[in-house]
Amino acid sequence: MEKILAQNKKIHDLLLLPSVNDEHGGVIVELKDPMDTNVFRFRLMASMKQWKLQGKKGLWIKFPIELANLIEIAVKEGFWYHHAEPHYLMLVHWIGDTESTIPANASHRVSIGAIVLNHKRELLVVQENIGRLKGSGIWKIPTGAVDEGESIFEGAIREVKEETGIDTEFLEVLAFRQIHKSFFDKSELFFICMMRPLSFDIQKQDLEIEAAQWMPFGEYAAQPSIQKDGLFKYIKDLCLAKAEGDYQGFTPLPITSSVFDDHKSFLYFSKDGLDQENSAI
Amino acid sequence: MEKILAQNKKIHDLLLLPSVNDEHGGVIVELKDPMDTNVFRFRLMASMKQWKLQGKKGLWIKFPIELANLIEIAVKEGFWYHHAEPHYLMLVHWIGDTESTIPANASHRVSIGAIVLNHKRELLVVQENIGRLKGSGIWKIPTGAVDEGESIFEGAIREVKEETGIDTEFLEVLAFRQIHKSFFDKSELFFICMMRPLSFDIQKQDLEIEAAQWMPFGEYAAQPSIQKDGLFKYIKDLCLAKAEGDYQGFTPLPITSSVFDDHKSFLYFSKDGLDQENSAI
Repeated sequence: MEKILAQNKKIHDLLLLPSVNDEHGGVIVELKDPMDTNVFRFRLMASMKQWKLQGKKGLWIKFPIELANLIEIAVKEGFWYHHAEPHYLMLVHWIGDTESTIPANASHRVSIGAIVLNHKRELLVVQENIGRLKGSGIWKIPTGAVDEGESIFEGAIREVKEETGIDTEFLEVLAFRQIHKSFFDKSELFFICMMRPLSFDIQKQDLEIEAAQWMPFGEYAAQPSIQKDGLFKYIKDLCLAKAEGDYQGFTPLPITSSVFDDHKSFLYFSKDGLDQENSAI
Repeated sequence: MEKILAQNKKIHDLLLLPSVNDEHGGVIVELKDPMDTNVFRFRLMASMKQWKLQGKKGLWIKFPIELANLIEIAVKEGFWYHHAEPHYLMLVHWIGDTESTIPANASHRVSIGAIVLNHKRELLVVQENIGRLKGSGIWKIPTGAVDEGESIFEGAIREVKEETGIDTEFLEVLAFRQIHKSFFDKSELFFICMMRPLSFDIQKQDLEIEAAQWMPFGEYAAQPSIQKDGLFKYIKDLCLAKAEGDYQGFTPLPITSSVFDDHKSFLYFSKDGLDQENSAI
Protein backbone atom coordinates (compact mmCIF):
# COMPACT_ATOMS: atom_id res chain seq x y z
CA MET A 1 0.00 0.00 0.00
CA GLU A 2 2.78 2.41 0.93
CA LYS A 3 4.57 1.50 -2.27
CA ILE A 4 1.49 2.33 -4.31
CA LEU A 5 1.12 5.67 -2.49
CA ALA A 6 4.77 6.44 -3.12
CA GLN A 7 4.34 5.57 -6.80
CA ASN A 8 1.23 7.73 -7.03
CA LYS A 9 3.17 10.58 -5.43
CA LYS A 10 5.92 10.11 -8.00
CA ILE A 11 3.46 10.17 -10.89
CA HIS A 12 1.79 13.22 -9.42
CA ASP A 13 5.12 15.04 -9.10
CA LEU A 14 5.97 14.25 -12.73
CA LEU A 15 2.68 15.84 -13.69
CA LEU A 16 3.56 19.16 -12.09
CA LEU A 17 5.04 21.82 -14.33
CA PRO A 18 8.74 22.33 -13.49
CA SER A 19 9.12 25.62 -11.63
CA VAL A 20 11.66 27.65 -9.69
CA ASN A 21 10.90 29.83 -6.69
CA ASP A 22 11.36 33.59 -6.97
CA GLU A 23 12.49 35.93 -4.17
CA HIS A 24 8.98 37.12 -3.38
CA GLY A 25 7.14 33.91 -2.48
CA GLY A 26 6.15 33.09 -6.03
CA VAL A 27 7.12 30.59 -8.73
CA ILE A 28 8.38 30.92 -12.30
CA VAL A 29 7.66 28.32 -14.98
CA GLU A 30 9.61 28.44 -18.20
CA LEU A 31 7.88 26.36 -20.86
CA LYS A 32 10.19 24.88 -23.45
CA ASP A 33 8.84 21.85 -25.27
CA PRO A 34 5.62 21.53 -27.24
CA MET A 35 2.74 20.02 -25.28
CA ASP A 36 -0.75 18.86 -26.18
CA THR A 37 -3.25 21.52 -25.08
CA ASN A 38 -5.24 19.07 -22.96
CA VAL A 39 -2.10 17.78 -21.27
CA PHE A 40 -1.03 21.36 -20.53
CA ARG A 41 -4.46 22.19 -19.04
CA PHE A 42 -4.30 19.14 -16.78
CA ARG A 43 -0.72 19.81 -15.63
CA LEU A 44 -1.41 23.51 -15.07
CA MET A 45 -4.47 22.76 -12.92
CA ALA A 46 -2.56 20.16 -10.86
CA SER A 47 0.35 22.57 -10.41
CA MET A 48 -1.89 25.44 -9.35
CA LYS A 49 -3.52 23.23 -6.72
CA GLN A 50 -0.07 22.40 -5.38
CA TRP A 51 1.15 26.03 -5.40
CA LYS A 52 -1.99 27.10 -3.57
CA LEU A 53 -1.30 24.44 -0.88
CA GLN A 54 2.29 25.68 -0.64
CA GLY A 55 1.09 29.23 -0.01
CA LYS A 56 2.63 30.61 -3.21
CA LYS A 57 1.53 34.09 -4.27
CA GLY A 58 2.67 35.23 -7.70
CA LEU A 59 2.71 32.67 -10.52
CA TRP A 60 4.73 33.45 -13.65
CA ILE A 61 4.70 31.42 -16.87
CA LYS A 62 6.95 32.23 -19.79
CA PHE A 63 5.60 31.07 -23.16
CA PRO A 64 8.08 30.96 -26.06
CA ILE A 65 6.39 32.15 -29.26
CA GLU A 66 6.43 28.58 -30.61
CA LEU A 67 3.93 27.62 -27.86
CA ALA A 68 1.40 30.36 -28.68
CA ASN A 69 -1.30 27.67 -28.81
CA LEU A 70 -1.08 27.19 -25.01
CA ILE A 71 -1.64 30.83 -24.02
CA GLU A 72 -5.43 30.55 -24.19
CA ILE A 73 -5.44 27.75 -21.58
CA ALA A 74 -3.55 29.82 -18.99
CA VAL A 75 -5.80 32.84 -19.66
CA LYS A 76 -8.84 30.64 -18.93
CA GLU A 77 -7.24 29.69 -15.58
CA GLY A 78 -7.02 33.36 -14.60
CA PHE A 79 -3.58 34.39 -15.90
CA TRP A 80 -3.08 37.74 -17.62
CA TYR A 81 -0.33 39.29 -19.75
CA HIS A 82 2.63 40.85 -17.98
CA HIS A 83 5.11 41.66 -20.74
CA ALA A 84 6.24 40.43 -24.13
CA GLU A 85 9.48 40.38 -26.06
CA PRO A 86 9.74 39.36 -29.74
CA HIS A 87 10.14 35.69 -28.86
CA TYR A 88 8.18 35.19 -25.68
CA LEU A 89 5.13 36.24 -23.70
CA MET A 90 5.11 36.35 -19.90
CA LEU A 91 1.83 35.58 -18.15
CA VAL A 92 1.19 36.17 -14.49
CA HIS A 93 -1.44 35.25 -11.90
CA TRP A 94 -1.81 36.24 -8.25
CA ILE A 95 -3.13 33.56 -5.89
CA GLY A 96 -1.97 35.15 -2.62
CA ASP A 97 -4.48 36.16 0.05
CA THR A 98 -3.12 39.70 0.29
CA GLU A 99 -3.22 42.47 -2.29
CA SER A 100 -1.16 41.73 -5.42
CA THR A 101 2.41 43.06 -5.36
CA ILE A 102 3.14 42.02 -8.96
CA PRO A 103 5.55 44.70 -10.26
CA ALA A 104 4.48 46.73 -13.26
CA ASN A 105 5.72 46.17 -16.77
CA ALA A 106 8.38 48.44 -18.29
CA SER A 107 6.69 51.75 -19.06
CA HIS A 108 9.35 53.83 -20.80
CA ARG A 109 11.46 53.87 -23.89
CA VAL A 110 14.74 55.76 -23.58
CA SER A 111 16.20 57.95 -26.31
CA ILE A 112 18.99 60.50 -26.66
CA GLY A 113 19.76 63.72 -28.47
CA ALA A 114 23.49 64.42 -28.94
CA ILE A 115 24.97 67.92 -28.90
CA VAL A 116 28.40 67.62 -30.56
CA LEU A 117 30.16 70.98 -30.76
CA ASN A 118 33.67 71.27 -32.27
CA HIS A 119 36.43 73.75 -31.43
CA LYS A 120 35.37 75.96 -34.34
CA ARG A 121 31.98 76.35 -32.66
CA GLU A 122 30.29 74.24 -35.29
CA LEU A 123 27.48 71.88 -34.37
CA LEU A 124 27.12 68.37 -35.80
CA VAL A 125 23.67 68.36 -37.48
CA VAL A 126 21.64 66.05 -39.71
CA GLN A 127 18.57 66.09 -41.92
CA GLU A 128 16.37 63.03 -41.59
CA ASN A 129 15.16 60.71 -44.32
CA ILE A 130 12.28 59.21 -42.40
CA GLY A 131 9.60 60.15 -39.90
CA ARG A 132 8.01 63.46 -39.13
CA LEU A 133 10.92 65.73 -40.12
CA LYS A 134 11.51 64.13 -43.54
CA GLY A 135 11.58 66.78 -46.25
CA SER A 136 11.26 69.62 -43.70
CA GLY A 137 14.75 70.92 -44.39
CA ILE A 138 15.40 71.25 -40.66
CA TRP A 139 18.97 70.73 -39.52
CA LYS A 140 18.83 69.00 -36.14
CA ILE A 141 21.11 67.26 -33.67
CA PRO A 142 21.41 63.46 -34.03
CA THR A 143 18.76 61.61 -32.01
CA GLY A 144 17.95 57.95 -31.52
CA ALA A 145 16.69 55.17 -29.27
CA VAL A 146 18.87 53.55 -26.62
CA ASP A 147 18.99 49.77 -27.11
CA GLU A 148 17.84 47.26 -24.50
CA GLY A 149 20.62 46.78 -21.95
CA GLU A 150 22.59 49.76 -23.27
CA SER A 151 23.57 52.70 -21.05
CA ILE A 152 22.53 56.24 -21.94
CA PHE A 153 26.09 57.39 -22.57
CA GLU A 154 26.84 54.32 -24.69
CA GLY A 155 23.69 54.87 -26.73
CA ALA A 156 24.61 58.50 -27.38
CA ILE A 157 28.11 57.57 -28.58
CA ARG A 158 26.73 54.77 -30.78
CA GLU A 159 23.98 56.85 -32.38
CA VAL A 160 26.34 59.70 -33.32
CA LYS A 161 28.78 57.20 -34.81
CA GLU A 162 26.03 55.37 -36.76
CA GLU A 163 24.38 58.49 -38.17
CA THR A 164 27.47 60.57 -38.92
CA GLY A 165 30.59 58.43 -38.55
CA ILE A 166 31.92 60.82 -35.89
CA ASP A 167 33.65 59.41 -32.77
CA THR A 168 32.76 61.21 -29.54
CA GLU A 169 33.47 61.32 -25.86
CA PHE A 170 30.43 61.59 -23.57
CA LEU A 171 30.51 64.62 -21.28
CA GLU A 172 27.17 65.26 -19.54
CA VAL A 173 23.41 64.86 -19.56
CA LEU A 174 22.30 68.52 -19.76
CA ALA A 175 18.58 67.84 -19.36
CA PHE A 176 15.93 65.19 -19.92
CA ARG A 177 12.35 65.23 -21.12
CA GLN A 178 9.57 62.90 -20.00
CA ILE A 179 6.84 62.41 -22.61
CA HIS A 180 3.66 60.35 -22.11
CA LYS A 181 1.80 58.29 -24.69
CA SER A 182 4.76 58.69 -26.97
CA PHE A 183 4.21 55.28 -28.54
CA PHE A 184 0.91 53.46 -27.92
CA ASP A 185 0.47 53.78 -24.15
CA LYS A 186 4.19 53.97 -23.42
CA SER A 187 6.16 56.96 -22.17
CA GLU A 188 9.58 58.13 -23.24
CA LEU A 189 12.59 59.64 -21.50
CA PHE A 190 14.69 61.73 -23.88
CA PHE A 191 18.16 62.64 -22.59
CA ILE A 192 19.95 65.68 -24.05
CA CYS A 193 23.65 64.83 -24.01
CA MET A 194 26.76 66.99 -24.41
CA MET A 195 29.53 65.26 -26.34
CA ARG A 196 33.07 66.14 -27.38
CA PRO A 197 34.04 65.18 -30.95
CA LEU A 198 37.10 62.95 -31.32
CA SER A 199 37.06 62.82 -35.12
CA PHE A 200 35.88 65.27 -37.77
CA ASP A 201 35.30 63.54 -41.12
CA ILE A 202 31.61 62.92 -41.59
CA GLN A 203 30.46 59.60 -43.09
CA LYS A 204 26.69 59.76 -43.10
CA GLN A 205 24.47 56.72 -42.83
CA ASP A 206 22.05 56.33 -45.77
CA LEU A 207 18.94 54.63 -44.39
CA GLU A 208 17.71 57.35 -42.03
CA ILE A 209 19.95 60.34 -42.77
CA GLU A 210 19.48 62.61 -45.80
CA ALA A 211 22.47 64.85 -45.06
CA ALA A 212 24.94 65.62 -42.28
CA GLN A 213 27.35 68.51 -41.75
CA TRP A 214 29.26 70.66 -39.28
CA MET A 215 27.14 73.84 -39.13
CA PRO A 216 28.20 77.17 -37.59
CA PHE A 217 26.26 77.40 -34.32
CA GLY A 218 24.77 80.79 -35.19
CA GLU A 219 23.40 79.46 -38.45
CA TYR A 220 21.87 76.46 -36.67
CA ALA A 221 20.30 78.65 -34.00
CA ALA A 222 18.86 81.06 -36.58
CA GLN A 223 16.60 78.39 -38.14
CA PRO A 224 12.98 79.52 -37.52
CA SER A 225 11.86 76.08 -36.27
CA ILE A 226 14.75 76.00 -33.77
CA GLN A 227 13.80 79.41 -32.43
CA LYS A 228 10.09 78.70 -32.16
CA ASP A 229 9.89 75.12 -30.98
CA GLY A 230 9.49 74.47 -27.24
CA LEU A 231 12.10 71.72 -27.19
CA PHE A 232 14.59 72.87 -29.84
CA LYS A 233 14.82 76.30 -28.24
CA TYR A 234 15.96 74.69 -24.98
CA ILE A 235 18.46 72.43 -26.74
CA LYS A 236 20.01 75.54 -28.31
CA ASP A 237 20.03 77.46 -24.99
CA LEU A 238 21.50 74.50 -23.10
CA CYS A 239 24.25 74.10 -25.69
CA LEU A 240 25.11 77.77 -25.34
CA ALA A 241 24.98 77.68 -21.54
CA LYS A 242 27.33 74.69 -21.52
CA ALA A 243 29.72 76.11 -24.10
CA GLU A 244 29.93 79.62 -22.65
CA GLY A 245 28.63 79.54 -19.10
CA ASP A 246 29.11 77.30 -16.13
CA TYR A 247 26.04 75.15 -16.68
CA GLN A 248 26.37 71.91 -14.71
CA GLY A 249 24.86 68.78 -16.16
CA PHE A 250 25.01 65.22 -14.79
CA THR A 251 27.98 62.91 -15.45
CA PRO A 252 27.88 59.11 -15.06
CA LEU A 253 29.86 57.28 -12.38
CA PRO A 254 29.82 53.48 -11.98
CA ILE A 255 28.35 52.35 -8.65
CA THR A 256 27.09 49.13 -7.07
CA SER A 257 24.52 48.97 -4.31
CA SER A 258 25.02 45.86 -2.20
CA VAL A 259 22.12 46.79 0.09
CA PHE A 260 19.66 47.51 -2.68
CA ASP A 261 20.18 45.09 -5.54
CA ASP A 262 23.86 44.23 -6.24
CA HIS A 263 23.51 45.49 -9.80
CA LYS A 264 26.33 47.28 -11.52
CA SER A 265 24.97 50.60 -12.66
CA PHE A 266 25.75 54.23 -13.38
CA LEU A 267 24.75 57.16 -11.21
CA TYR A 268 24.36 60.44 -13.13
CA PHE A 269 24.80 63.58 -11.04
CA SER A 270 26.52 66.95 -10.93
CA LYS A 271 30.06 65.99 -10.00
CA ASP A 272 31.24 69.58 -9.54
CA GLY A 273 28.31 70.32 -7.25
CA LEU A 274 29.15 67.36 -5.03
CA ASP A 275 32.92 67.82 -5.05
CA GLN A 276 32.62 71.47 -3.99
CA GLU A 277 30.43 70.45 -1.10
CA ASN A 278 32.67 67.61 0.05
CA SER A 279 35.80 69.73 -0.09
CA ALA A 280 34.02 72.52 1.80
CA ILE A 281 33.16 70.32 4.80
CA MET B 1 -20.86 40.93 -65.57
CA GLU B 2 -19.74 44.27 -64.13
CA LYS B 3 -22.35 43.92 -61.46
CA ILE B 4 -20.97 40.53 -60.46
CA LEU B 5 -17.44 41.91 -60.35
CA ALA B 6 -18.61 44.81 -58.21
CA GLN B 7 -20.39 42.39 -55.88
CA ASN B 8 -17.30 40.21 -55.64
CA LYS B 9 -15.25 43.27 -54.83
CA LYS B 10 -17.72 44.19 -52.09
CA ILE B 11 -17.58 40.69 -50.60
CA HIS B 12 -13.80 40.73 -50.81
CA ASP B 13 -13.63 44.10 -49.00
CA LEU B 14 -15.89 42.79 -46.24
CA LEU B 15 -13.48 39.92 -45.80
CA LEU B 16 -10.55 42.21 -45.09
CA LEU B 17 -9.74 42.96 -41.47
CA PRO B 18 -10.65 46.56 -40.62
CA SER B 19 -7.44 48.58 -40.29
CA VAL B 20 -6.21 52.14 -39.95
CA ASN B 21 -3.02 53.52 -41.48
CA ASP B 22 -0.20 54.64 -39.20
CA GLU B 23 2.21 57.52 -39.87
CA HIS B 24 5.00 55.27 -41.07
CA GLY B 25 3.45 53.47 -44.02
CA GLY B 26 1.99 50.65 -41.96
CA VAL B 27 -1.45 49.51 -40.78
CA ILE B 28 -2.93 48.85 -37.35
CA VAL B 29 -5.69 46.29 -36.78
CA GLU B 30 -7.55 46.33 -33.49
CA LEU B 31 -9.44 43.08 -33.03
CA LYS B 32 -12.58 43.35 -30.92
CA ASP B 33 -15.11 40.59 -31.50
CA PRO B 34 -14.63 36.85 -31.17
CA MET B 35 -13.98 35.10 -34.48
CA ASP B 36 -13.72 31.50 -35.56
CA THR B 37 -10.03 30.58 -35.92
CA ASN B 38 -10.47 29.42 -39.54
CA VAL B 39 -12.35 32.59 -40.45
CA PHE B 40 -9.58 34.66 -38.87
CA ARG B 41 -6.89 32.78 -40.78
CA PHE B 42 -8.73 33.32 -44.06
CA ARG B 43 -9.35 37.03 -43.43
CA LEU B 44 -5.78 37.60 -42.25
CA MET B 45 -4.31 35.97 -45.36
CA ALA B 46 -6.61 37.99 -47.66
CA SER B 47 -5.73 41.20 -45.79
CA MET B 48 -1.99 40.53 -45.94
CA LYS B 49 -2.22 39.99 -49.71
CA GLN B 50 -3.99 43.35 -50.01
CA TRP B 51 -1.49 45.20 -47.73
CA LYS B 52 1.41 43.76 -49.73
CA LEU B 53 -0.17 45.07 -52.96
CA GLN B 54 -0.65 48.47 -51.32
CA GLY B 55 3.05 48.60 -50.42
CA LYS B 56 2.44 48.59 -46.67
CA LYS B 57 5.45 47.94 -44.45
CA GLY B 58 4.72 47.40 -40.75
CA LEU B 59 1.61 45.41 -39.80
CA TRP B 60 0.30 45.71 -36.25
CA ILE B 61 -2.48 43.58 -34.72
CA LYS B 62 -3.80 44.19 -31.22
CA PHE B 63 -5.32 41.09 -29.60
CA PRO B 64 -7.49 41.66 -26.52
CA ILE B 65 -6.84 38.92 -23.97
CA GLU B 66 -10.28 37.44 -24.68
CA LEU B 67 -9.05 36.54 -28.18
CA ALA B 68 -5.94 34.63 -27.02
CA ASN B 69 -7.06 31.71 -29.20
CA LEU B 70 -6.25 33.70 -32.38
CA ILE B 71 -2.64 34.57 -31.53
CA GLU B 72 -1.27 31.27 -32.82
CA ILE B 73 -2.70 31.94 -36.31
CA ALA B 74 -0.92 35.28 -36.66
CA VAL B 75 2.34 33.78 -35.39
CA LYS B 76 2.09 31.11 -38.11
CA GLU B 77 1.76 33.91 -40.69
CA GLY B 78 5.05 35.43 -39.54
CA PHE B 79 3.95 37.88 -36.82
CA TRP B 80 5.93 38.22 -33.59
CA TYR B 81 5.29 39.78 -30.19
CA HIS B 82 5.90 43.49 -29.79
CA HIS B 83 4.55 44.35 -26.35
CA ALA B 84 1.86 43.29 -23.89
CA GLU B 85 -0.28 45.00 -21.29
CA PRO B 86 -2.47 43.11 -18.79
CA HIS B 87 -5.41 43.05 -21.21
CA TYR B 88 -3.89 42.92 -24.66
CA LEU B 89 -1.00 41.62 -26.72
CA MET B 90 0.40 43.55 -29.70
CA LEU B 91 1.80 41.51 -32.57
CA VAL B 92 3.83 42.97 -35.41
CA HIS B 93 5.08 41.86 -38.82
CA TRP B 94 7.32 43.65 -41.33
CA ILE B 95 6.48 43.12 -45.02
CA GLY B 96 8.43 46.11 -46.39
CA ASP B 97 11.26 45.59 -48.87
CA THR B 98 13.70 47.67 -46.81
CA GLU B 99 15.17 46.91 -43.39
CA SER B 100 12.59 46.87 -40.59
CA THR B 101 12.15 50.18 -38.75
CA ILE B 102 9.74 48.72 -36.16
CA PRO B 103 10.45 50.70 -32.97
CA ALA B 104 11.58 48.78 -29.91
CA ASN B 105 9.36 47.88 -26.99
CA ALA B 106 9.55 49.87 -23.75
CA SER B 107 12.79 48.89 -22.04
CA HIS B 108 12.75 50.72 -18.70
CA ARG B 109 10.79 50.91 -15.51
CA VAL B 110 10.98 54.23 -13.69
CA SER B 111 11.21 54.60 -9.93
CA ILE B 112 11.97 57.33 -7.41
CA GLY B 113 13.66 57.84 -4.08
CA ALA B 114 12.41 60.85 -2.10
CA ILE B 115 14.65 62.95 0.15
CA VAL B 116 12.31 64.88 2.46
CA LEU B 117 14.22 67.05 4.92
CA ASN B 118 12.39 69.27 7.42
CA HIS B 119 13.48 72.59 8.96
CA LYS B 120 14.80 70.75 12.03
CA ARG B 121 17.21 68.91 9.75
CA GLU B 122 15.32 65.67 10.21
CA LEU B 123 14.96 63.23 7.33
CA LEU B 124 11.74 61.34 6.56
CA VAL B 125 12.69 57.65 6.73
CA VAL B 126 10.95 54.28 6.65
CA GLN B 127 11.61 50.63 7.39
CA GLU B 128 10.19 48.22 4.83
CA ASN B 129 7.87 45.28 5.41
CA ILE B 130 8.57 43.51 2.14
CA GLY B 131 11.39 42.77 -0.25
CA ARG B 132 15.10 42.67 0.28
CA LEU B 133 15.34 45.12 3.19
CA LYS B 134 12.61 43.47 5.29
CA GLY B 135 13.86 42.80 8.80
CA SER B 136 17.20 44.51 8.12
CA GLY B 137 16.49 47.38 10.52
CA ILE B 138 17.74 49.87 7.93
CA TRP B 139 16.09 53.29 7.96
CA LYS B 140 15.89 54.46 4.34
CA ILE B 141 14.24 57.17 2.29
CA PRO B 142 10.82 56.32 0.75
CA THR B 143 11.16 54.69 -2.68
CA GLY B 144 8.66 53.39 -5.20
CA ALA B 145 7.69 52.81 -8.81
CA VAL B 146 6.27 55.56 -10.99
CA ASP B 147 2.91 54.52 -12.49
CA GLU B 148 2.25 54.28 -16.20
CA GLY B 149 1.47 57.75 -17.55
CA GLU B 150 2.60 59.44 -14.32
CA SER B 151 5.33 62.08 -14.28
CA ILE B 152 8.43 61.63 -12.14
CA PHE B 153 7.58 64.55 -9.83
CA GLU B 154 3.98 63.34 -9.46
CA GLY B 155 5.17 59.83 -8.63
CA ALA B 156 7.54 61.15 -5.95
CA ILE B 157 4.78 63.22 -4.30
CA ARG B 158 2.34 60.27 -4.43
CA GLU B 159 4.78 57.69 -3.05
CA VAL B 160 5.75 59.86 -0.04
CA LYS B 161 2.07 60.51 0.67
CA GLU B 162 1.13 56.82 0.37
CA GLU B 163 3.98 55.49 2.51
CA THR B 164 4.07 58.16 5.22
CA GLY B 165 1.01 60.42 4.88
CA ILE B 166 3.30 63.45 4.43
CA ASP B 167 2.42 66.12 1.82
CA THR B 168 5.39 67.45 -0.12
CA GLU B 169 6.41 69.93 -2.77
CA PHE B 170 8.75 68.65 -5.46
CA LEU B 171 12.00 70.59 -5.71
CA GLU B 172 14.63 68.86 -7.89
CA VAL B 173 15.98 65.66 -9.35
CA LEU B 174 19.43 65.50 -7.72
CA ALA B 175 20.68 62.46 -9.64
CA PHE B 176 19.48 59.36 -11.42
CA ARG B 177 20.72 55.80 -11.65
CA GLN B 178 20.41 53.50 -14.66
CA ILE B 179 20.35 49.80 -13.76
CA HIS B 180 20.25 46.93 -16.28
CA LYS B 181 18.51 43.55 -15.90
CA SER B 182 16.72 44.93 -12.90
CA PHE B 183 13.61 42.86 -13.54
CA PHE B 184 13.76 40.02 -16.09
CA ASP B 185 15.54 41.64 -19.05
CA LYS B 186 14.27 45.14 -18.30
CA SER B 187 16.28 48.12 -17.10
CA GLU B 188 15.37 50.71 -14.50
CA LEU B 189 15.85 54.44 -14.11
CA PHE B 190 15.83 55.48 -10.45
CA PHE B 191 15.47 59.23 -9.84
CA ILE B 192 16.70 60.71 -6.54
CA CYS B 193 14.34 63.59 -5.75
CA MET B 194 14.60 66.49 -3.29
CA MET B 195 11.25 67.39 -1.70
CA ARG B 196 10.06 70.01 0.76
CA PRO B 197 7.62 68.75 3.42
CA LEU B 198 4.27 70.57 3.62
CA SER B 199 2.91 68.57 6.57
CA PHE B 200 4.56 66.85 9.52
CA ASP B 201 2.26 64.24 11.10
CA ILE B 202 3.25 60.80 9.92
CA GLN B 203 0.51 58.29 9.05
CA LYS B 204 2.33 55.20 7.86
CA GLN B 205 0.90 52.77 5.35
CA ASP B 206 0.68 49.19 6.66
CA LEU B 207 1.13 46.89 3.67
CA GLU B 208 4.73 47.74 2.76
CA ILE B 209 5.95 49.94 5.62
CA GLU B 210 7.02 48.57 9.01
CA ALA B 211 7.79 51.95 10.57
CA ALA B 212 8.24 55.59 9.59
CA GLN B 213 9.74 58.56 11.42
CA TRP B 214 11.50 61.91 11.20
CA MET B 215 15.13 61.02 11.98
CA PRO B 216 17.93 63.47 12.79
CA PHE B 217 20.08 63.58 9.66
CA GLY B 218 23.28 62.73 11.55
CA GLU B 219 21.68 59.61 13.03
CA TYR B 220 20.49 58.52 9.57
CA ALA B 221 23.91 59.12 8.02
CA ALA B 222 25.66 57.19 10.82
CA GLN B 223 23.96 53.89 9.94
CA PRO B 224 26.71 51.48 8.78
CA SER B 225 24.79 50.36 5.69
CA ILE B 226 24.28 53.99 4.63
CA GLN B 227 27.98 54.71 4.97
CA LYS B 228 29.15 51.60 3.17
CA ASP B 229 26.67 51.15 0.35
CA GLY B 230 27.58 52.57 -3.07
CA LEU B 231 24.16 54.07 -3.65
CA PHE B 232 23.09 55.07 -0.11
CA LYS B 233 26.36 56.91 0.43
CA TYR B 234 25.63 59.12 -2.58
CA ILE B 235 22.04 59.75 -1.49
CA LYS B 236 23.39 61.00 1.84
CA ASP B 237 26.08 63.15 0.19
CA LEU B 238 23.62 64.61 -2.31
CA CYS B 239 21.17 65.47 0.47
CA LEU B 240 23.93 67.27 2.35
CA ALA B 241 25.22 69.07 -0.76
CA LYS B 242 21.69 70.30 -1.52
CA ALA B 243 20.92 71.31 2.07
CA GLU B 244 24.22 73.06 2.77
CA GLY B 245 25.92 73.76 -0.54
CA ASP B 246 24.88 75.13 -3.87
CA TYR B 247 24.29 71.79 -5.54
CA GLN B 248 22.14 72.26 -8.63
CA GLY B 249 19.71 69.53 -9.59
CA PHE B 250 17.18 69.48 -12.41
CA THR B 251 13.70 71.05 -12.06
CA PRO B 252 10.74 70.23 -14.32
CA LEU B 253 9.23 72.79 -16.70
CA PRO B 254 6.24 72.04 -18.96
CA ILE B 255 7.09 72.23 -22.67
CA THR B 256 5.53 71.20 -25.97
CA SER B 257 7.48 70.45 -29.10
CA SER B 258 5.38 71.18 -32.20
CA VAL B 259 8.23 70.19 -34.51
CA PHE B 260 8.99 66.91 -32.77
CA ASP B 261 5.79 65.32 -31.56
CA ASP B 262 3.20 67.78 -30.22
CA HIS B 263 3.18 65.99 -26.87
CA LYS B 264 2.82 67.88 -23.64
CA SER B 265 5.79 66.98 -21.52
CA PHE B 266 8.22 68.14 -18.86
CA LEU B 267 11.82 69.12 -19.43
CA TYR B 268 14.06 68.62 -16.37
CA PHE B 269 17.16 70.82 -16.30
CA SER B 270 19.22 73.11 -14.10
CA LYS B 271 17.16 76.30 -14.12
CA ASP B 272 19.76 78.35 -12.27
CA GLY B 273 22.45 77.26 -14.71
CA LEU B 274 20.38 78.35 -17.68
CA ASP B 275 19.06 81.59 -16.14
CA GLN B 276 22.58 82.73 -15.23
CA GLU B 277 23.71 82.14 -18.77
CA ASN B 278 20.75 83.90 -20.36
CA SER B 279 21.04 86.91 -18.09
CA ALA B 280 24.79 87.05 -18.76
CA ILE B 281 24.35 87.34 -22.53
